[in-house]
Amino acid sequence: MARRKLGLPKRKKKASRVQGKLGSAPGTVSYLGNKEKSDSEVFVISYDEEESTTKTHLKVDEILNYRKGPKTAWINVIGITDEVFIEELGKGFELNNLILEDAVNTDQRPKIDEYEGYIFGVFKMLYLNENDEIVPEHMAMVLMENTVLVFQEVKEDVFHGVRNRIEAKSGRIRTRGADYLFFALLDAIIDNYFLVLEQINHRIELLEDEVYANPKPIVAQHIQQLKKEVLKIRRWIYPVKELVSRLIDSESPLIKHDTKLFLRDALDHSLEINESLQIYREMSMSLMEMYMSNMSNKMNEVMKVLTIMASIFIPLTFIAGVYGMNFENMPELHYEYGYYVVWVVMILLFVGMLIYFKRKDWL
Amino acid sequence: MARRKLGLPKRKKKASRVQGKLGSAPGTVSYLGNKEKSDSEVFVISYDEEESTTKTHLKVDEILNYRKGPKTAWINVIGITDEVFIEELGKGFELNNLILEDAVNTDQRPKIDEYEGYIFGVFKMLYLNENDEIVPEHMAMVLMENTVLVFQEVKEDVFHGVRNRIEAKSGRIRTRGADYLFFALLDAIIDNYFLVLEQINHRIELLEDEVYANPKPIVAQHIQQLKKEVLKIRRWIYPVKELVSRLIDSESPLIKHDTKLFLRDALDHSLEINESLQIYREMSMSLMEMYMSNMSNKMNEVMKVLTIMASIFIPLTFIAGVYGMNFENMPELHYEYGYYVVWVVMILLFVGMLIYFKRKDWL
Amino acid sequence: MARRKLGLPKRKKKASRVQGKLGSAPGTVSYLGNKEKSDSEVFVISYDEEESTTKTHLKVDEILNYRKGPKTAWINVIGITDEVFIEELGKGFELNNLILEDAVNTDQRPKIDEYEGYIFGVFKMLYLNENDEIVPEHMAMVLMENTVLVFQEVKEDVFHGVRNRIEAKSGRIRTRGADYLFFALLDAIIDNYFLVLEQINHRIELLEDEVYANPKPIVAQHIQQLKKEVLKIRRWIYPVKELVSRLIDSESPLIKHDTKLFLRDALDHSLEINESLQIYREMSMSLMEMYMSNMSNKMNEVMKVLTIMASIFIPLTFIAGVYGMNFENMPELHYEYGYYVVWVVMILLFVGMLIYFKRKDWL
Amino acid sequence: MARRKLGLPKRKKKASRVQGKLGSAPGTVSYLGNKEKSDSEVFVISYDEEESTTKTHLKVDEILNYRKGPKTAWINVIGITDEVFIEELGKGFELNNLILEDAVNTDQRPKIDEYEGYIFGVFKMLYLNENDEIVPEHMAMVLMENTVLVFQEVKEDVFHGVRNRIEAKSGRIRTRGADYLFFALLDAIIDNYFLVLEQINHRIELLEDEVYANPKPIVAQHIQQLKKEVLKIRRWIYPVKELVSRLIDSESPLIKHDTKLFLRDALDHSLEINESLQIYREMSMSLMEMYMSNMSNKMNEVMKVLTIMASIFIPLTFIAGVYGMNFENMPELHYEYGYYVVWVVMILLFVGMLIYFKRKDWL
Amino acid sequence: MARRKLGLPKRKKKASRVQGKLGSAPGTVSYLGNKEKSDSEVFVISYDEEESTTKTHLKVDEILNYRKGPKTAWINVIGITDEVFIEELGKGFELNNLILEDAVNTDQRPKIDEYEGYIFGVFKMLYLNENDEIVPEHMAMVLMENTVLVFQEVKEDVFHGVRNRIEAKSGRIRTRGADYLFFALLDAIIDNYFLVLEQINHRIELLEDEVYANPKPIVAQHIQQLKKEVLKIRRWIYPVKELVSRLIDSESPLIKHDTKLFLRDALDHSLEINESLQIYREMSMSLMEMYMSNMSNKMNEVMKVLTIMASIFIPLTFIAGVYGMNFENMPELHYEYGYYVVWVVMILLFVGMLIYFKRKDWL
Repeated sequence: MARRKLGLPKRKKKASRVQGKLGSAPGTVSYLGNKEKSDSEVFVISYDEEESTTKTHLKVDEILNYRKGPKTAWINVIGITDEVFIEELGKGFELNNLILEDAVNTDQRPKIDEYEGYIFGVFKMLYLNENDEIVPEHMAMVLMENTVLVFQEVKEDVFHGVRNRIEAKSGRIRTRGADYLFFALLDAIIDNYFLVLEQINHRIELLEDEVYANPKPIVAQHIQQLKKEVLKIRRWIYPVKELVSRLIDSESPLIKHDTKLFLRDALDHSLEINESLQIYREMSMSLMEMYMSNMSNKMNEVMKVLTIMASIFIPLTFIAGVYGMNFENMPELHYEYGYYVVWVVMILLFVGMLIYFKRKDWL
Repeated sequence: MARRKLGLPKRKKKASRVQGKLGSAPGTVSYLGNKEKSDSEVFVISYDEEESTTKTHLKVDEILNYRKGPKTAWINVIGITDEVFIEELGKGFELNNLILEDAVNTDQRPKIDEYEGYIFGVFKMLYLNENDEIVPEHMAMVLMENTVLVFQEVKEDVFHGVRNRIEAKSGRIRTRGADYLFFALLDAIIDNYFLVLEQINHRIELLEDEVYANPKPIVAQHIQQLKKEVLKIRRWIYPVKELVSRLIDSESPLIKHDTKLFLRDALDHSLEINESLQIYREMSMSLMEMYMSNMSNKMNEVMKVLTIMASIFIPLTFIAGVYGMNFENMPELHYEYGYYVVWVVMILLFVGMLIYFKRKDWL
Repeated sequence: MARRKLGLPKRKKKASRVQGKLGSAPGTVSYLGNKEKSDSEVFVISYDEEESTTKTHLKVDEILNYRKGPKTAWINVIGITDEVFIEELGKGFELNNLILEDAVNTDQRPKIDEYEGYIFGVFKMLYLNENDEIVPEHMAMVLMENTVLVFQEVKEDVFHGVRNRIEAKSGRIRTRGADYLFFALLDAIIDNYFLVLEQINHRIELLEDEVYANPKPIVAQHIQQLKKEVLKIRRWIYPVKELVSRLIDSESPLIKHDTKLFLRDALDHSLEINESLQIYREMSMSLMEMYMSNMSNKMNEVMKVLTIMASIFIPLTFIAGVYGMNFENMPELHYEYGYYVVWVVMILLFVGMLIYFKRKDWL
Repeated sequence: MARRKLGLPKRKKKASRVQGKLGSAPGTVSYLGNKEKSDSEVFVISYDEEESTTKTHLKVDEILNYRKGPKTAWINVIGITDEVFIEELGKGFELNNLILEDAVNTDQRPKIDEYEGYIFGVFKMLYLNENDEIVPEHMAMVLMENTVLVFQEVKEDVFHGVRNRIEAKSGRIRTRGADYLFFALLDAIIDNYFLVLEQINHRIELLEDEVYANPKPIVAQHIQQLKKEVLKIRRWIYPVKELVSRLIDSESPLIKHDTKLFLRDALDHSLEINESLQIYREMSMSLMEMYMSNMSNKMNEVMKVLTIMASIFIPLTFIAGVYGMNFENMPELHYEYGYYVVWVVMILLFVGMLIYFKRKDWL
Repeated sequence: MARRKLGLPKRKKKASRVQGKLGSAPGTVSYLGNKEKSDSEVFVISYDEEESTTKTHLKVDEILNYRKGPKTAWINVIGITDEVFIEELGKGFELNNLILEDAVNTDQRPKIDEYEGYIFGVFKMLYLNENDEIVPEHMAMVLMENTVLVFQEVKEDVFHGVRNRIEAKSGRIRTRGADYLFFALLDAIIDNYFLVLEQINHRIELLEDEVYANPKPIVAQHIQQLKKEVLKIRRWIYPVKELVSRLIDSESPLIKHDTKLFLRDALDHSLEINESLQIYREMSMSLMEMYMSNMSNKMNEVMKVLTIMASIFIPLTFIAGVYGMNFENMPELHYEYGYYVVWVVMILLFVGMLIYFKRKDWL
């Protein structure tokens, strides 16, 4: 229905995920999302300036071989419900258990932590599904010396462009190291935020048109849902600018100076996104205001109709009532043209009232 | 009734606790909560990598023995109404009187103070009771070299998980010192905040459904009470992020570098909680807005019914009135089909009105 | 009346005090409050660990003797309308004229200034009078080496507790110097803020009950007055936290390290007070919202009654009107049971309407 | 009319001053205000501890003589439309053209700029004219070694007090240099802000009384105009605190340490003014809220009257209508006391309704 | 229509420009605006103190000749849809590809980036077209040693003044280098913001008058559109103050100390613009409030008319109805003056009602 038309997601029934986690030790790697358990799938793209190869269905040992190899490797883990596999992988790469916990914790807010030898980041990919609904997907990235390790919930992602550029050897990506890959992935995520914002902008315009044309209660509901969605998205997007700026200021040898120029660009984009979100928030507040003003305007309309009808006919009815009285001695009743005189009076009254309301600008 | 259903607590009658305290010297240890006076109960869990023992019903001397012992000791004081006992304990551990005052002052806002040789913290545990009401409980913790001293108001707490992990030797807790225990307790408190927030989220959704389905005045009242509760909880939760971040920056030798990694995780969680609280606040404001818009919508409905009824029947009544007049000379009255003509006119008017209101989209 | 019941002060007629001051040189000591001119009264409490003496009716020379004496002296000037006396005193203690100006300027906002050899502070004492009205009183304190000089407008104050502790030798006050006395006085002022806040909380709860039970226009007026009062009090209380924190960071030798521990406690309290004020502000805004929602709810009630009455009886009256027409040829009039049939129709209509409104949940 | 009574200024017709300036080089000295062109008038007050002399009608050469003279000189230029004269003067004092541009640019926001050898400041004098309207006047001051150069738009100003103190040798002003004079002028400006705020406070109270007593639409208009005026004044006053604080932190040798003590006092005053402005803003917002609540209250009143009248008489009219029907067979019509019975029924209904509305608290 | 009259632009249909860009490598130079593809046009103004020459229709080689020439050169590229040309130019000037991307990206928010050897800035020119609509135009500037390279979307711009001053040798522009030219262009952009703000101010005043005179629903719509426009403009203008301030603090040798004095002036202007925008935002919020208050006032008017009419005539109709009843035994009907008495009663009621409503101030 209307909900679908506006691209609003259906309310999901959500089990208390927190409850399950309570009391477990910090650093416990346990998946908290709502996907069903399944094996993780891994593919690895390794490349240098000369060639790029893509492999899938690898075992942990094979993956670890890429670790300090001569090429830049993008190790992509799809599906984060298989906690055992992920812990094994983490041990292989000598990662802290705490970051594995965050990598599979779908509630984790965006963050970037620097550790000795690697940089760890959590982000939300946002993209539109076939119904133009906004789908959030948890993802985590680890930047190591010449490797980027990526964890994502499902196969769908926003990295087509990056993969294409590696394969097609377009742009600089093949000539640069893992830090540029890390940036390119981050950039792809941020670029998709723009798409999501455009969708929100589109919804606001749809709602705006409805508010002006047809301010039904359902519209108010849609405005409120939009506001909630903007709040939710903001929570995922807002911290990104801070994180990118921290990367730029980082003194880690993992990020080369050249790459920081590109990160500055990404910072710019995230600033722009935050500004847009702010504007959309204010616009949705304005929408509600506009809705209320239209409601009160409609009420005015209704009241005017009532007032005009009642004010015109109640006095006329009174006059008719007077000459419906049954007094014996009512001389007017016996005048020959009494009836016609009354009609004239009533018509004059009627016309007078119309003029009065016209002057008041109610007609 | 409805209040209970929404999990809102009953308003408590509160004596002026402040009045009683006025004029007493700073550093006076006096309990200000609303629990009845009773003896404090103490249990001590001491553990190292090999074994863990739990003892209860200890006297002050026995407790002090744990102070600089070889094992890590968690000394838990339940009940803080027994001021004499607490002062004795404080003297034994060489604690400043000011912190004892704060330890038993149930109005104390969350804080962390570093002293020579120990770190003192006050927090609010929040948990849900059997009616899903949010219960705040004052608690204070002192981190000493190999001891954590915990003061809590009642026996109920949020530390089951920590106790279990010590006993079951699960996770790292048995292999690490008092600072990790301190962190684990803090982490347990913060984890419970998530549960409380989930409950608030649940209430917001309940109220949201009621606002859409049935916006009675009682719903507005519930929304306002929710807003007050969020305000109150925020006051207890909000400072925590600041405090944890101060612990991370602390140069005290009591907190080892390793533990700071975990504290960073806790900081992350408290940031997330604050963001959620912010979102819930805005959502409850939206709720009220929605309620007002629904109210005004209902009013519109009422007015439309009135206007339609009045606008249709008042003119008809007027016509009937006209032909109820008793003028001698009213030719229409004597026409054979006069009566039927009037009926036709009235029906035409009726139908015309209906079409008019239909067009105005009022029907 | 109601105003009194809610503890709201009467609006005072205030002459333009600013006008009188305009054009005079900075540092001119002139009283701006609304108390009548009268002599200042002085009492001095001097104490050390062994003994404490209180003297009154002292002359300037006698007062100055305490200045660098062996004991800690609390010199309390009551009444600040006697500008000559105060200037003389200031000269005796070698105080800057600017601070004397502030000491007697009842409009001065809270401040703390450090000078060579003394620290000067201005605060507002707030306390409740017998009608539970909030009374502000201007006061200024000068901390010197072993002397605290206090200026206050009237005799009433919030320092009973401090005086008692000095006399009774309770707590640490007798064993510590002037800086602790300074802190103790400040602490007494802050403690009274709690009492004032409790009173405001009480008023909010009263108004809340009235808003729910009986939202008359006078209630809206009381809410607005409460908001104004909170604004006014905030202005006096808000800066205190900043000032105390500046005292803690001060490097003046006048404040010993030990005393700073206590000041940290006072800082904590002022933070708590500011948070409460913030919450009360938001609560009073919610109150107004609630009032408006109740108003609009009452309007709905009124409209429903009108609509139900009119919608039911207007059609019935129309039917009656029809059969009151005087057409010669109205066959229904001559049916034997015509009258009864009309009654049946009217009753059916009536019942139908009732069911309709019942279904709409208007009854 | 009412506008005048509330002291609101009439809306001025304003030509696009910006348009005229567009495209001219920065540093072009051109007057942008709305005063008519006229010659500048200059008076110079020069003084030292012994004597003070005032001279008027001076030429540029004569003025320049004061520049490095032995006495402190206050050179006051009244009228800033004579751009040639001002440029000449500026060249004589070796002032940057940019500051001359600002000196005559009546749109310039308050600012303080330090240059080699002089400090330049722009402020808005605000004072009340004979109708208690708030009049802003642009003014600029240059502090040089022993000279203060003042530019003002018209003769009226707020410096009477300073002039009097120089002449009467009251206070310290004669014994101190140009920096103290600079401070004294700034202080006079800030002191007048208090007067203006008092006037605003007065208007708020007037409006408050009107809102309570007689909430006509014109009152809403006045509230909005007040809000606009507060916004405008805030723009002129707000930056001052920042500027004074920058003067205090300045390392320029032009401002002696002693004078900084006085500047701290001025800073205090500007903080206080900013707080008041903030409070007035919130109060004017509350006023509007109160107005709306009163409006909706009045509506309630109106609706109640309508509802009571209609609810009482519509059913009665229906009864009368019934017995006005002309059915042949209406047995009640022939009962001897039928008429009286109907009257009794109608009176009972009437009384019942009254009781009902009384119970609902509508009467 | 009204939209046009208020200078509001028509809603443009906007293709998803983001979509096209997604997946392309960072640093890809691709135009995103809505102008049609066309060749870029270039003109170069080169000048020194002696002479200035303007050339158009230059090829890339010719342009590059100016690069390190003896004169200051202003190279102006009009039209940024020709990506090949721009990349070629960029290569010639050794510019980073990232900045070329920004130069043609019409969505780029204002920014300033310093690179080795040049400073790059993106701004929005805002000017009014012939319909007084606000037109934004993307533009980018590169400051090099003695060259300023300017990219703009269309031929129209805000630089007439600068060109004139170069040609006419007025002001200092001919005697100073490229950094002053850079400043002069920036200053011209900022100066035009004032014009745009004046236009917004004008619209606010128009809307204000309409709100007071004739608060139709279309006015609310215009207010909301104004709010949106202010939001949009703020996004382009707001960052400028930050950027200018960064230029002032820059240590790049490209900007001479003298020029920084002028930049300080520009900073001042951007601060003023931001303040004005803030004020306009608050004023447009007030407008909406005023609109709502006027709406509710009009509703009150309507209700009063209805209430007065109904309250007066419904009781009178009732009386007429009573004596229209057909009871056999109605003694009043047979009194000789019964009819007249009833008229007197009705007139008294009528007058009484009028007095009642007069007293209530409803007439």
